[in-house]
Amino acid sequence: MAYYAEPIARLLEELERLPGIGPKSAQRLAFHILKGDDASAQRLADAITQVKREIHFCRQCFNFASDDLCAFCADSRRDGSIICVVEEPRDVVAVERTGEFRGLYHVLQGAISPMDGIGPEELRVRELIERLGTGSEVREVVIATDPDVEGETTAFYLARLIKPLGILVSRIASGLPVGGDLEYADEVTLGRALEARREM
Amino acid sequence: MAYYAEPIARLLEELERLPGIGPKSAQRLAFHILKGDDASAQRLADAITQVKREIHFCRQCFNFASDDLCAFCADSRRDGSIICVVEEPRDVVAVERTGEFRGLYHVLQGAISPMDGIGPEELRVRELIERLGTGSEVREVVIATDPDVEGETTAFYLARLIKPLGILVSRIASGLPVGGDLEYADEVTLGRALEARREM
Repeated sequence: MAYYAEPIARLLEELERLPGIGPKSAQRLAFHILKGDDASAQRLADAITQVKREIHFCRQCFNFASDDLCAFCADSRRDGSIICVVEEPRDVVAVERTGEFRGLYHVLQGAISPMDGIGPEELRVRELIERLGTGSEVREVVIATDPDVEGETTAFYLARLIKPLGILVSRIASGLPVGGDLEYADEVTLGRALEARREM
Repeated sequence: MAYYAEPIARLLEELERLPGIGPKSAQRLAFHILKGDDASAQRLADAITQVKREIHFCRQCFNFASDDLCAFCADSRRDGSIICVVEEPRDVVAVERTGEFRGLYHVLQGAISPMDGIGPEELRVRELIERLGTGSEVREVVIATDPDVEGETTAFYLARLIKPLGILVSRIASGLPVGGDLEYADEVTLGRALEARREM
């Protein structure tokens, strides 16, 4: 005998497809939706439908956008001479949260990973090079891909491609996280932190 | 400047209303939905809408049901002489998973909690007593409310109400969880386990 009525089973199945949602979380979410009022559930369903209908990729930087250009590319107050290259739209949010960056972005939509069959052609690399081409005002490209194997490979690949264009290429620093503990840092991170030491 | 385009911000807001979903999880879920195909997102949205449209409370036991009666109440092979009283529909699933119970259920939809202003009138107590009334075949009521203050209060309240009807009232056992460790058991649980010791 099935534990759940069919519409509940179907909702559980869909919820369990989401990342980080196991059977227990799915059950908690489903029962929350069931116990809640109809309007809340409808708002959630509508928000899901709407986000898929209205959000696409920015024509210029491939971040998520509700218009032709994303809010950053469309904002004339942003500094168009510096582009921060990231892997995913969520990384744009992470950089933006620092409040340290006033330039534009370029979202690669992934990182080079030969193991997963992802080469530069699968990423928005061609579009980045086009942005940096003739008539471009870009003076610096900050490569902010993840500091892991795929991100580093992508960073090196891009640097080799962009430097010949006469544009400064920089890489975000690796080192100990602020508030971190030397004792618990892995050797590679600590090694990087030592290597990249700066005069005080 | 907003980090997210408006439809994304709205989806995040709705996701964060769900239990156990903080800003980080909401972002992960939203970006998963954004990166996934349209059909998956639509299936999720439809499952939410459908569950609210098709699921209501069983007329007899107040479990979730897609028909007038839930699957348990509608199943003539279940033993109608024994009723297991639980707080929430999720508890029905928990009892059902044990495979130890073949009777029917009664879902109180909560527990007595004077602190939260929840008395017996806010629960499905009246409906339970009606089920046990004249012409009923019920011989035993197993009270499986949570072993916490509210659940125990509810159990005592129901026992006092049901016993005069000449029906056996039982309570699920409290004690050490199977696979548990005596050393780490709290005093109250261990005390209960000692008190309820059984001859081997």
